[in-house]
Amino acid sequence: MSAAGRLSALRAELKDRGWDGFLVPRSDEHQGEYVPPSAERLAWLTGFTGSAGMAAVLTDTAAIFVDGRYTLQVRDQVDTDLFTARHITDEPLADWLKEVLSKGARLAFDPWLHTPKQVARLRRWTEAAGGELVAAEDNPLDAVWEDRPAPPQAPVRDHPLEYAGRESRDKRQDLAAGLKDKGIETAFISAPDSIAWLLNVRGGDVAHTPLPLSFALLHDDGTVDWFIDAVKLSGESPPRLDNAVSTHTPETMAGRLDDLGGRKVLLDPDLAPEWARMRLRQAGAECVEGPDPCLLPKARKNAVEIAGAHAAHRRDGRSLCRFLAWFDGAAARLGEGEHLDELRLVDRLSQFRREDPLFRDLSFDTIAGSGPNGAIVHYRVTEESNRRLAAGELFLLDSGAQYPDGTTDVTRTLPVGEPSAEMRRCFTLVLKGHIAIAAARFPKGTTGSQLDSLARYPLWQEGFDYDHGTGHGVGSYLGVHEGPQRISKLPNSTPLEPGMIVSNEPGYYRTGAFGIRIENLVCVIEAEDIPHDERAMLAFETLTLAPIDLRLVEPALLTAGERAWLNAYHQRVREAHIETLDEAERAWLEGATRPC
Amino acid sequence: MSAAGRLSALRAELKDRGWDGFLVPRSDEHQGEYVPPSAERLAWLTGFTGSAGMAAVLTDTAAIFVDGRYTLQVRDQVDTDLFTARHITDEPLADWLKEVLSKGARLAFDPWLHTPKQVARLRRWTEAAGGELVAAEDNPLDAVWEDRPAPPQAPVRDHPLEYAGRESRDKRQDLAAGLKDKGIETAFISAPDSIAWLLNVRGGDVAHTPLPLSFALLHDDGTVDWFIDAVKLSGESPPRLDNAVSTHTPETMAGRLDDLGGRKVLLDPDLAPEWARMRLRQAGAECVEGPDPCLLPKARKNAVEIAGAHAAHRRDGRSLCRFLAWFDGAAARLGEGEHLDELRLVDRLSQFRREDPLFRDLSFDTIAGSGPNGAIVHYRVTEESNRRLAAGELFLLDSGAQYPDGTTDVTRTLPVGEPSAEMRRCFTLVLKGHIAIAAARFPKGTTGSQLDSLARYPLWQEGFDYDHGTGHGVGSYLGVHEGPQRISKLPNSTPLEPGMIVSNEPGYYRTGAFGIRIENLVCVIEAEDIPHDERAMLAFETLTLAPIDLRLVEPALLTAGERAWLNAYHQRVREAHIETLDEAERAWLEGATRPC
Repeated sequence: MSAAGRLSALRAELKDRGWDGFLVPRSDEHQGEYVPPSAERLAWLTGFTGSAGMAAVLTDTAAIFVDGRYTLQVRDQVDTDLFTARHITDEPLADWLKEVLSKGARLAFDPWLHTPKQVARLRRWTEAAGGELVAAEDNPLDAVWEDRPAPPQAPVRDHPLEYAGRESRDKRQDLAAGLKDKGIETAFISAPDSIAWLLNVRGGDVAHTPLPLSFALLHDDGTVDWFIDAVKLSGESPPRLDNAVSTHTPETMAGRLDDLGGRKVLLDPDLAPEWARMRLRQAGAECVEGPDPCLLPKARKNAVEIAGAHAAHRRDGRSLCRFLAWFDGAAARLGEGEHLDELRLVDRLSQFRREDPLFRDLSFDTIAGSGPNGAIVHYRVTEESNRRLAAGELFLLDSGAQYPDGTTDVTRTLPVGEPSAEMRRCFTLVLKGHIAIAAARFPKGTTGSQLDSLARYPLWQEGFDYDHGTGHGVGSYLGVHEGPQRISKLPNSTPLEPGMIVSNEPGYYRTGAFGIRIENLVCVIEAEDIPHDERAMLAFETLTLAPIDLRLVEPALLTAGERAWLNAYHQRVREAHIETLDEAERAWLEGATRPC
Repeated sequence: MSAAGRLSALRAELKDRGWDGFLVPRSDEHQGEYVPPSAERLAWLTGFTGSAGMAAVLTDTAAIFVDGRYTLQVRDQVDTDLFTARHITDEPLADWLKEVLSKGARLAFDPWLHTPKQVARLRRWTEAAGGELVAAEDNPLDAVWEDRPAPPQAPVRDHPLEYAGRESRDKRQDLAAGLKDKGIETAFISAPDSIAWLLNVRGGDVAHTPLPLSFALLHDDGTVDWFIDAVKLSGESPPRLDNAVSTHTPETMAGRLDDLGGRKVLLDPDLAPEWARMRLRQAGAECVEGPDPCLLPKARKNAVEIAGAHAAHRRDGRSLCRFLAWFDGAAARLGEGEHLDELRLVDRLSQFRREDPLFRDLSFDTIAGSGPNGAIVHYRVTEESNRRLAAGELFLLDSGAQYPDGTTDVTRTLPVGEPSAEMRRCFTLVLKGHIAIAAARFPKGTTGSQLDSLARYPLWQEGFDYDHGTGHGVGSYLGVHEGPQRISKLPNSTPLEPGMIVSNEPGYYRTGAFGIRIENLVCVIEAEDIPHDERAMLAFETLTLAPIDLRLVEPALLTAGERAWLNAYHQRVREAHIETLDEAERAWLEGATRPC
């Protein structure tokens, strides 16, 4: 079917149901970063494959809403005769509805695919435009999607105690006690990483994150009703679940929710499907809106998870060092006919990582931007965009992997040939911001929002900045992006707590020229060696272990303290890897981690 | 009447009215920092004179709620047999009501003294405790307050164009156009500084801020109904009001609001009295909640106001320099029988300021804390607390004044005799934070919340912090504290904009030993000399012109950039004052501003 044919089929279906419009978000019912092919409704309808966006289809017009990252991509991928492309915040859905929705129009949505908070907003916007927002019983797009892929059924396996660090039973008892304290009888959980963490299981239903897609009810006695396709539990090594966890087919969930009438049920208004809220209300349950109770304990890694993170970063750092040593050799041969392009480099790095027997997956599609491509913050190399590296350029490489003991995410910026003085200056400003975060001490109760500007200050002083956050939370063999903590300009009320892992990744991007980013993962710890104990202070311990390219550092721009941090870090990197490398790699590492 | 007698009288009055309780906040109907004696209800009832707090009186029990600044003071001033003293956030009213309020109890409040946002919260708390919140028609405390002072009637005068910089008519037309754009027909304005700014008038109804207390309605055609006691307009030089401003006696306001039925009326839920919201609702007006439209334009000083601020700070800085020179001389004579105590120093500084013919008032009660008193952040010296200064101590002096061309607020920390190495180290850490703010450049759109940690970082690195904001907004011959911008740990969504004046005042307080604070006022400007023009960048220009005591600076702890800032600042201070001083003062200033 052509894009026009798909749109016509959907419109016919809407007409049959008596609706004047329908909303097609990119999200699935779990609101995760990745969705399985069976839930790529927005891509099927419009061709748009970005990680966020929404289409709105009316009888005679349609639009697609994307954010600033995707304004170019949407024009490449989507037939804009069929869908007007709009910027999701500058030209929002609310305004578009006011322009095009007729009075009394019935705009439908699939309540599985939107959260209660999103629906409240959609309802406000629809009603402000004179229309009515209508929950669909089943998704009209699915009804016309003929070749829709089957939902994923990847086998689920244990996430063993040697990596998880805490028995699922103990986690459930803790959370159950917390629910009881608040008078909550059941928590509805729809975030797959929350369920994976709670039950100490991993799966493979989406790309780059070892998640089984499922739903769960956690009760205040620590028991769990787990709604998951039975096929996923019939693999070669299914998880050992204790008898407080009952498994059910997903189809039975509606009936189970109906049984919760009269009970107090917690539901996360930012994560749960509106469907669950509606069903529980209808059943006479009292819905309490609040954060998914797994979020904070999952974010606060336990001692075993932290030890695992160190081990994973040590091995990942070794792979990266071997790649970097190889890269420098290859880059030095550029004049002698050596050919380096982005795709080859992505592949080569991946090969080094795959040599680790514990390697499970990349944690995201590698970002490998040479020259001007490095300045495109969310760049992903394709056959079309692939660039050959040339001397005098920078090469930005953001990559990571999934290991059972930890998830990694690291960015290094590398010179190809001789970097310019301006590149060195900009790199050093980014490095100063990176060190400000890495070396920061801060009182308990401090949020990442409070720390964000420390990373930007050296750039700001020169008139520069970067249009992304300074740090995101990272899971333990889970999502490479997880909340609730982050380091960002945007207000965030979650204090950083010991055991939380966040990235530290300031950058600088000169459009059409080069991109710079220096990213390590750091773990929040109790601050050591504080001269005074007036206040309970926290600090970061850097997990990532790979050299920061000294050829891009202008030592004169560093303070003595910054230089001391860099030298101490490089000493750690050297000591971590030197024994594990071959002779040529050792020589390279000695040079790459020399004191400056 | 004794405190017990007053409480009994109030309880008898409540009984007559059929109420079970009554709330007595410190605020008056204008929600300002200062209230006139006629509105000191909390002080009359309880004896407590702090700047924030609330009493709750029930039939058989009563409590007073104060914040952390006042937990000691409340015990000194209030009979705790009559009023249980509680910490307003740790032991909140909500909890107390749950403990003591009986089911169905009627808790009354005076809707003139609470904002709509406060009332919504009070209602939630009262209802959660099983009671009912009841709006009083008139204040029962006023009914039993026999010797209540008359409301202030200070004469109102023009704030002339040479200081205001913009005609009231033009300000009103601008705001009216803004209201019209939003479909708002009238704005209800109750903040006295907003009205003073809008009408280019000043008065004298409260301490330290030249405000007339009044109310106003600004209509979308630029006309104003001004509700103000006619006596205030019959002084020697009453303000010249154009005929778009109609004056009315305050008693007629209720009737005027009744006439607004069917109109869309803007009202600030954080500033307006709940009374106005109730009255407008009753009249059938559509209340739109939003910020007082004067707040932002008042905060963004115009070119004349900024020039005035520079002039006022130059004169104020001269007075402070003369005091500092005198102080150093006197402190040097301490061993020879010279007597310095906090009260004498407050008085002496005030004398120097009063020599300026443009001096109008102090902008707040001077904070003069010697030794351990300096560590009490909101310390105000009294006859009882007054301390004699001794060698080896620090002296913290936070003061400011009102001039028609500007409002000042400056803190200097001074050594008495030889400071210890620890004092110098702590002072230098505070100075590093001060300089980080003073020298900061930041992109347009940045809020003060984003900058706050820059001032704390050097202290954090040593395990220190301070429990107050880094900066507050400052008015132009108006409140020394004004919003909406501020530099604070607390989230604040107001971007800093050119012309906004804020304080820059990091500190460090060692309980029982000493206090350190370095405070200058700074004005937001467009950043100059940015090497690249990629981004629109802002910066601060320091307004305050007085030496930062070099005897407390440990130069080895400063970076080259920090030292350059300090030397350049001291050069500005020297050049600003040197020609205006006598010979001895000149010699002192040369030394106090020597390069370090």
